[in-house]
Amino acid sequence: MLRIAMLGTGLIGRFYTEALHEKRSRDRVHCVYSRSADRAGEFAAQFQIPHHTASLQEAVSRDDIDAVVIGLPNHLHEECVSAAAAAGKAVLCTKPLGRNAAEALRMLQAVEQAGVFHAYLEDLVYTPKTLKALRSVHSGAIGDVLWVRSRETHPGPHSDWFWNKELSGGGAIIDMGCHCIEIARNFIGKDVRPVEVTCWADTQVHPIEAEDHAVGMVRYENGAIGQFEVSWAFRGGMDLRDEVAGTDGTIWLNHWLRTGFEMFTAGGQTGYVAEKAESESGWLFPVGDEPSALGYTDMFSDVLNAIDDQRTPKEDFYDGYVVNAIIDAAYKSARSKIWEPIDLPVWRGHENVPRVGAVREFDAEHLLIKEEKMPDGSRKVILRHKTTGTVTQKTVE
Amino acid sequence: MLRIAMLGTGLIGRFYTEALHEKRSRDRVHCVYSRSADRAGEFAAQFQIPHHTASLQEAVSRDDIDAVVIGLPNHLHEECVSAAAAAGKAVLCTKPLGRNAAEALRMLQAVEQAGVFHAYLEDLVYTPKTLKALRSVHSGAIGDVLWVRSRETHPGPHSDWFWNKELSGGGAIIDMGCHCIEIARNFIGKDVRPVEVTCWADTQVHPIEAEDHAVGMVRYENGAIGQFEVSWAFRGGMDLRDEVAGTDGTIWLNHWLRTGFEMFTAGGQTGYVAEKAESESGWLFPVGDEPSALGYTDMFSDVLNAIDDQRTPKEDFYDGYVVNAIIDAAYKSARSKIWEPIDLPVWRGHENVPRVGAVREFDAEHLLIKEEKMPDGSRKVILRHKTTGTVTQKTVE
Amino acid sequence: MLRIAMLGTGLIGRFYTEALHEKRSRDRVHCVYSRSADRAGEFAAQFQIPHHTASLQEAVSRDDIDAVVIGLPNHLHEECVSAAAAAGKAVLCTKPLGRNAAEALRMLQAVEQAGVFHAYLEDLVYTPKTLKALRSVHSGAIGDVLWVRSRETHPGPHSDWFWNKELSGGGAIIDMGCHCIEIARNFIGKDVRPVEVTCWADTQVHPIEAEDHAVGMVRYENGAIGQFEVSWAFRGGMDLRDEVAGTDGTIWLNHWLRTGFEMFTAGGQTGYVAEKAESESGWLFPVGDEPSALGYTDMFSDVLNAIDDQRTPKEDFYDGYVVNAIIDAAYKSARSKIWEPIDLPVWRGHENVPRVGAVREFDAEHLLIKEEKMPDGSRKVILRHKTTGTVTQKTVE
Amino acid sequence: MLRIAMLGTGLIGRFYTEALHEKRSRDRVHCVYSRSADRAGEFAAQFQIPHHTASLQEAVSRDDIDAVVIGLPNHLHEECVSAAAAAGKAVLCTKPLGRNAAEALRMLQAVEQAGVFHAYLEDLVYTPKTLKALRSVHSGAIGDVLWVRSRETHPGPHSDWFWNKELSGGGAIIDMGCHCIEIARNFIGKDVRPVEVTCWADTQVHPIEAEDHAVGMVRYENGAIGQFEVSWAFRGGMDLRDEVAGTDGTIWLNHWLRTGFEMFTAGGQTGYVAEKAESESGWLFPVGDEPSALGYTDMFSDVLNAIDDQRTPKEDFYDGYVVNAIIDAAYKSARSKIWEPIDLPVWRGHENVPRVGAVREFDAEHLLIKEEKMPDGSRKVILRHKTTGTVTQKTVE
Repeated sequence: MLRIAMLGTGLIGRFYTEALHEKRSRDRVHCVYSRSADRAGEFAAQFQIPHHTASLQEAVSRDDIDAVVIGLPNHLHEECVSAAAAAGKAVLCTKPLGRNAAEALRMLQAVEQAGVFHAYLEDLVYTPKTLKALRSVHSGAIGDVLWVRSRETHPGPHSDWFWNKELSGGGAIIDMGCHCIEIARNFIGKDVRPVEVTCWADTQVHPIEAEDHAVGMVRYENGAIGQFEVSWAFRGGMDLRDEVAGTDGTIWLNHWLRTGFEMFTAGGQTGYVAEKAESESGWLFPVGDEPSALGYTDMFSDVLNAIDDQRTPKEDFYDGYVVNAIIDAAYKSARSKIWEPIDLPVWRGHENVPRVGAVREFDAEHLLIKEEKMPDGSRKVILRHKTTGTVTQKTVE
Repeated sequence: MLRIAMLGTGLIGRFYTEALHEKRSRDRVHCVYSRSADRAGEFAAQFQIPHHTASLQEAVSRDDIDAVVIGLPNHLHEECVSAAAAAGKAVLCTKPLGRNAAEALRMLQAVEQAGVFHAYLEDLVYTPKTLKALRSVHSGAIGDVLWVRSRETHPGPHSDWFWNKELSGGGAIIDMGCHCIEIARNFIGKDVRPVEVTCWADTQVHPIEAEDHAVGMVRYENGAIGQFEVSWAFRGGMDLRDEVAGTDGTIWLNHWLRTGFEMFTAGGQTGYVAEKAESESGWLFPVGDEPSALGYTDMFSDVLNAIDDQRTPKEDFYDGYVVNAIIDAAYKSARSKIWEPIDLPVWRGHENVPRVGAVREFDAEHLLIKEEKMPDGSRKVILRHKTTGTVTQKTVE
Repeated sequence: MLRIAMLGTGLIGRFYTEALHEKRSRDRVHCVYSRSADRAGEFAAQFQIPHHTASLQEAVSRDDIDAVVIGLPNHLHEECVSAAAAAGKAVLCTKPLGRNAAEALRMLQAVEQAGVFHAYLEDLVYTPKTLKALRSVHSGAIGDVLWVRSRETHPGPHSDWFWNKELSGGGAIIDMGCHCIEIARNFIGKDVRPVEVTCWADTQVHPIEAEDHAVGMVRYENGAIGQFEVSWAFRGGMDLRDEVAGTDGTIWLNHWLRTGFEMFTAGGQTGYVAEKAESESGWLFPVGDEPSALGYTDMFSDVLNAIDDQRTPKEDFYDGYVVNAIIDAAYKSARSKIWEPIDLPVWRGHENVPRVGAVREFDAEHLLIKEEKMPDGSRKVILRHKTTGTVTQKTVE
Repeated sequence: MLRIAMLGTGLIGRFYTEALHEKRSRDRVHCVYSRSADRAGEFAAQFQIPHHTASLQEAVSRDDIDAVVIGLPNHLHEECVSAAAAAGKAVLCTKPLGRNAAEALRMLQAVEQAGVFHAYLEDLVYTPKTLKALRSVHSGAIGDVLWVRSRETHPGPHSDWFWNKELSGGGAIIDMGCHCIEIARNFIGKDVRPVEVTCWADTQVHPIEAEDHAVGMVRYENGAIGQFEVSWAFRGGMDLRDEVAGTDGTIWLNHWLRTGFEMFTAGGQTGYVAEKAESESGWLFPVGDEPSALGYTDMFSDVLNAIDDQRTPKEDFYDGYVVNAIIDAAYKSARSKIWEPIDLPVWRGHENVPRVGAVREFDAEHLLIKEEKMPDGSRKVILRHKTTGTVTQKTVE
């Protein structure tokens, strides 16, 4: 049994606590911290948490605490990480790790220098679908990954601080792009260096400083592309989808709006439908088990097992730092309008990873460009001559 | 922490053990029983279970056991229930409870007379989608439930005993109809008496005595219909869907083949895709978290919490008995070719439940049959005169 | 170019006329008949039809008319068929042909005795999806057809006469079951005799005499089942789906609510969405080309080509008569609560069609019941001994 | 009746001819031209075309020809357009219009100077789904269009010339990006000036000079983005999807792989499934009516009606020229790695179109950033003070 200090009582603190306590869990949130003593007390009462406090120092340094979960706004992460690391506790920090790579790197150094366990709570790489898809990719089911599109869009976040660029570090990119970028990185391979980014970002709808809509492409050293799409202006609920294109296959994941649960209701009070749902009547698309579908369940299972087993979790602060570095380049590109290099002074992955894709030989003289079955049942091949480069086609039976 | 004796080491024993141990569970299978000492030993080793035995008596009566889970073929349920009840243990029995209602009733009486906790392991009413859908229905989101279609079809079960009518009690109906019937009962209301059944059953494909395909309709006292569709001859994987039609809404659940995970693979070894999947290349539809999607996770959570809380679980042996009584009538109808009454000498639900449906008044003289928006934008109403019964239509703006 | 007399100016007359005139058609509605001269005149003006009349006799007997399309309420079909046949015109009658088999048989005899071309306008067997699915089935793609589920449900028809049992001949079964029955018959084989029916029918919601919800099963001589599901109480739009289960495959068709067009709209005036849609905001599921999706386009193409080519169309009055005979038995079964034989004194299909399904041999002594890949990667077979009937299993690599 | 000269006997010539002749069409291909007299003869025989020739001049200048359809490789378009324009015929040219904007502009000038009718055969803006979606957008159903993602990917084209950059003008962008760009332009508004492009393009898989995978973003003057995704390396068939995000709604169109037709087949010869399908067994997703789903049917209907009515078709050479100009900028950006301006010396749309998006006032002092329903049922608003810019939140009941 692990005893956890939960820092933060907002929506994410609530989701985390529910996920930690859910089903027949042997772990418990043992102390909750909020900047407001009242909110801490209410939260403790609601979730039957024995201790609560408005003192960060107390929360992170109690003797009866094994691990600290940081579920506070982005501008508070660094302070919390420092305090928890200094207290020698395992530190679990919500996404994004920092508001920028410099901040993230300092947090990485803090936990490493303190020698404490650290986990980056990137839940969306832990959804059951993503975990199974990653196993398929790693087993070679779709060949080399060429391109990943990861998309998270909804009508905008629920708390004021998200909309304040100083506190959050940006807009939709820092809020949700961090998910999309790390999802793509998992599919493409976390050992493959992300090289450069192009990014469009704009404030299309809301009266804010930060971007509310953005699309970016991250080019990896092996030629693969990780595309992120984020919006706080999407209508229809929360769209959470990943598409992975490989040389030998394709994977499409829909995590939220189309998961096999469809409901039409003529109206009346139907109660809570799903996170960020926009309507309560007509056709609705609830999600069966939201904490599981968002990856919380499997994330805490992996991270807490990692603490028990004294191993590294699937995602740690180094991953959070890489994500922040990519986001920094994305913001730079959105302003400069050129592909911006990703600045990664600390790189722990592979170097000189080979290019994706593999050319197939057709015969001694030709490379195979394409093979297709035609409507009349015949098979046509398109070939390239190895030396002349001439492209020809012929029908084979 | 609850210590569990697992009876059975087949596919269901395996799934149950995985579900009980999964994530950060505080419960453990503490002893495993198999009719074969070897299989018991191998199973114990695989799942790190401290004790194993080929003695049923020992398994159910150990002092260090809190609860017995029966995961053995149908013809062994009664013997196991009797032994576990006599030993004073909580008894959790897989579906179907008995091979027929008489057997089920004796099991119900055994646990009730022994005064032990009993749970009927009907996992499919515990899928996260089903639980959420039931909450929506109970909150009135779709009005009165008029009709439920529950369907489970696949290419046939994995063990020999299922195909032997003496051991299993029948074919696809007893194997899977038990799920469908109880799903419909949950949506329609477990307090509403099931009155009669009509059923088609045939052995269309396999060289067996029992039915490999069947469709039946159960009429409830309030006029609602629970339709079950089962087949061991379905091609394409496992089709697990529910449809619920209400006076004010509709619910469609797809638990297996279309859950938002789509994968194309050009081939090669892709490994295990999903329970009862039929292909390993082309378009595949894996399920992210199979134990959760099948309800095992939430089922054991509810049942073990019920033991801790000394309350009745969502499904107990009485429910298993009702399901067996409905199945008995279905088999009778398949032979007699008439609607057969459901024989339920022990009925603990309501009597004289009112009819589904409610007529709306249009004005003092007319009842509203229908209101529709036409292609040209106008609204048409169809009315019935209260006294003359004449049907008329008119356009309202 | 064919010149057509359109009888009827209601929704079906409108849809038919649009389908006949659509795109670059060479055919034209040349005269329109309505019981109301005003409606005939308005309709003619709207669709640029040169002639209109309130005289049935004039409409069917004009010299400049090649074919008569009957789009009037069910109780008027026989009179129109008689008149058109007497005038020697090609007769195209909407579904259902008659209100019962006796009426349908008289209509069949009328056109056959007059020697005129006759087509049964069963549009739903002509949807592009259905046509392609039928070609796949006929090419053997799914083996023997074992079971067909055809479903049409919506919140109820748009005109008063549908709700009047005397005029229409019944309720949801005669209105929509006629589609479902003929769809199943096409998949199972129109030469296979439908033998008997069981049917549940009830008036669950509306203040009418006729059934507003029904499910029936038609057993064919070869053991195949055609299941129809119809409702005037469905909420959420129009649900139009077919499922076909074969020994070697499966086909699922969704014609209306999920065709790859999804729209969320926060509200406002969005205009006509789709036939029988129930909402104008939230998630909507429009159909791209409604006349095509409903089969009108391909139906008229086949029927008018058949007139030109002097051949029989895909569906003629004989098919309409068979459908009515099945419906008669369904109504009888709904009352008698037993399987009712289908009375088909005129049967033009095959006799003694062999049973569906084919048993596979495993080795000299055993029949193969089942073969499955297990989670651990092994393959298990379930076998039946040819002489003893014993069921065994073994693992093969 | 229009008599058409078809230039080209490849796949596109075949599809066009089928679409022109389909159903009860009053138009006919009257003469077919191929560079090979044999292919012209075979084609004429197959489609019952009265005349065939290997002389381009003859084909375009016959007296009995009303219109010329150009279905030849890209490098031949200009020559054909010049010849047909000189002959005074209506000219219908397949996509892309030119290999680059200079070529396209010369073709535009040729037809305009000759005063002949011209249509750009961009079929994908004519799919029934697209047409209906455009009507919804124009009626305001989704508010201002913010972003369009149009995607066409498949395993590569069927003829050798596509793979030859000299003949085609490029790779996947010129081949399919032309569709995606014009689809987005239709949704965003053809009168809104496309300003600049960023584009990633790579040759990831095939041994060719041109790109086989690319993603680009086109920024329009009003701030809307048209995103195109094209690949010749996609596995799983042909993925043809559009997504449109608006301030008040969302539209998702799936034209090919998920249209409500699903088939599982255990194998055997199932015949032609769909254009660019990759497998013949397992789960397949055929398209009911391919020419209609690809827009050919409605495209020719509009274009030929436009000839009859002496009006401009939905898409003409000017549109083809704009698309080429955008593609030119995309290729430039793929090389330069910066956003490239779109060079449009001839611009016939609006100037100074207002920005998308509209800010909503909450009260006299605040603008509304967001309104959300929370899990506990409350409603939270996020506000921005008009003068201070401070972001706050509060709960409203």
